[in-house]
Amino acid sequence: MVTFDDIASAAQQIAGVAHRTTVATSRLLDAACGNRMFLKCENLQRAGAFKFRGAYNAVSRLSEAERAAGVITHSSGNHAQALALVCQLLGVRATIVMPQNAPPQKLAATRDYGAEVVLYDPATATREAISRDLAEEHGYVLIPPYDHPHIIAGQGTAAMELVADAGPLDYLFVPCGGGGLLSGSAIAAKHLAPGCKVIGVEPAAGDDATRSFKTGFLHTVRNPDTIADGARTPSLGQLTFPLVRQHVDDMLAVSDDDLIRTMQFVWTRLKLIVEPTGVLGLAAVFNRRYPVEGQRVGVILSGGNADVAMAGQWFR
Amino acid sequence: MVTFDDIASAAQQIAGVAHRTTVATSRLLDAACGNRMFLKCENLQRAGAFKFRGAYNAVSRLSEAERAAGVITHSSGNHAQALALVCQLLGVRATIVMPQNAPPQKLAATRDYGAEVVLYDPATATREAISRDLAEEHGYVLIPPYDHPHIIAGQGTAAMELVADAGPLDYLFVPCGGGGLLSGSAIAAKHLAPGCKVIGVEPAAGDDATRSFKTGFLHTVRNPDTIADGARTPSLGQLTFPLVRQHVDDMLAVSDDDLIRTMQFVWTRLKLIVEPTGVLGLAAVFNRRYPVEGQRVGVILSGGNADVAMAGQWFR
Repeated sequence: MVTFDDIASAAQQIAGVAHRTTVATSRLLDAACGNRMFLKCENLQRAGAFKFRGAYNAVSRLSEAERAAGVITHSSGNHAQALALVCQLLGVRATIVMPQNAPPQKLAATRDYGAEVVLYDPATATREAISRDLAEEHGYVLIPPYDHPHIIAGQGTAAMELVADAGPLDYLFVPCGGGGLLSGSAIAAKHLAPGCKVIGVEPAAGDDATRSFKTGFLHTVRNPDTIADGARTPSLGQLTFPLVRQHVDDMLAVSDDDLIRTMQFVWTRLKLIVEPTGVLGLAAVFNRRYPVEGQRVGVILSGGNADVAMAGQWFR
Repeated sequence: MVTFDDIASAAQQIAGVAHRTTVATSRLLDAACGNRMFLKCENLQRAGAFKFRGAYNAVSRLSEAERAAGVITHSSGNHAQALALVCQLLGVRATIVMPQNAPPQKLAATRDYGAEVVLYDPATATREAISRDLAEEHGYVLIPPYDHPHIIAGQGTAAMELVADAGPLDYLFVPCGGGGLLSGSAIAAKHLAPGCKVIGVEPAAGDDATRSFKTGFLHTVRNPDTIADGARTPSLGQLTFPLVRQHVDDMLAVSDDDLIRTMQFVWTRLKLIVEPTGVLGLAAVFNRRYPVEGQRVGVILSGGNADVAMAGQWFR
């Protein structure tokens, strides 16, 4: 289990290394949302997303022997880049298993941080099997993207800082992929502001977590068709599912159109680059998909690694 | 003439109304530029650019009779939107003279702030004549975009805040269109940090100010072909030309390709939306167009009103 003490400990572990990101406010956004909004800008976190928090908390706690062996993960997204940067900072060898059809700029960014990228053919192998085989062969330590207590505790530090800086919140809206950020955020927010309702938000095409949350049975959606590429994870994890059920108050899914409208507002009016997955939480409030009005509402803007050349296709 | 006392007075005048914008720093940017960089984020200013500072300083100092008469300006850019917002806040009627071929979103933004937009045909009339005629007919007070002591003093408050927050600087790089921001910044920076060299930067296609600065004769370039639309002003003004000559240390021009490279870095790595004109100062350092290395360098990111749908054309 993960408790608030684990998150408080993670906050000490990452202090001075992770950015304490700003909490953005805007009268314009308040008017558009009908609430007092507090945006935790994890798009301004190192490597462009909250993932740095969990990755640093996990790798920096490894023993000398484990560090010497090196770490491995399977991810083509923000966890891969965060882990690569963390390993560069800590002098640990990192191996990242990525599909051979991953976007070239993501391969390049991960390699730029000094990680070794192992490509596989997604038609003939699964990334879990590849990384398990490599871990066994070389003794690498697997650092999964969300289903790990140090990862969950690290991700919870963003909500902890948000409540410290914004004061008590009535609501906290959090993007949900595998549930690491959502469960960590819920544990932190409920401890620091017990009256705060924590709401998880995922893309409509991949609403597995919402259905799992509401039914109590683990649902799976493979390769959902959504621009929120950070939330294409097939299901909640063995650790995150019970944590989400225990600490989260409600969940909902929003459409890609909702994400695009929200991104366009944030880019053009707040002048911040956020990626589609990063506005999941804000999209629920901005597009009035959840009945909340006149409240103090926190939102985690989880990442900013958008392909800016796509803007012409997204925005008209 | 405009002195530091005028800027200090402007700072009091706009306090609590204009945003005291953040000064962004980034190890990544420092490495890319070879200097310690301090970015004054006027893209996060109200109405999306530094222009709000001067407009508020000017309009809020009008007499009751002048306020009752209303104000007028000719601009299709950030000064128009800033003046419209300022007038909305102060309850003053604003008339903005814009060419009938101005981008629809700029017309809409100016009208959204409650200003009356008067369109003219740029083939048959000049905006100066139209606004002069309207001012005479209705008794409107003309608030020009840069050549006005209260405008210049107001724009100088951004550099004043930057030096206060970043500490003494060795260099300050500032975008230059009509020279209001540049002259105000130079007066403020030289007073607060006498050793600070102030460098003005404009687009290569419209290098009138650089040539005026270097020769002492006022040069003019009409409708230069550059993506830096905020710096398409034909020349420095009657007030700003001597101030720039007196207080600025050097000037240079950068290419549109330099602007695009710099914008792409700021959007994708710093996650901030800046417009082409807004990165003029940074582009000089980022692209190594000026010999400065290992110094404490301030930069004014002057605005963020970019058309984000253009990103696909700018960035490859």
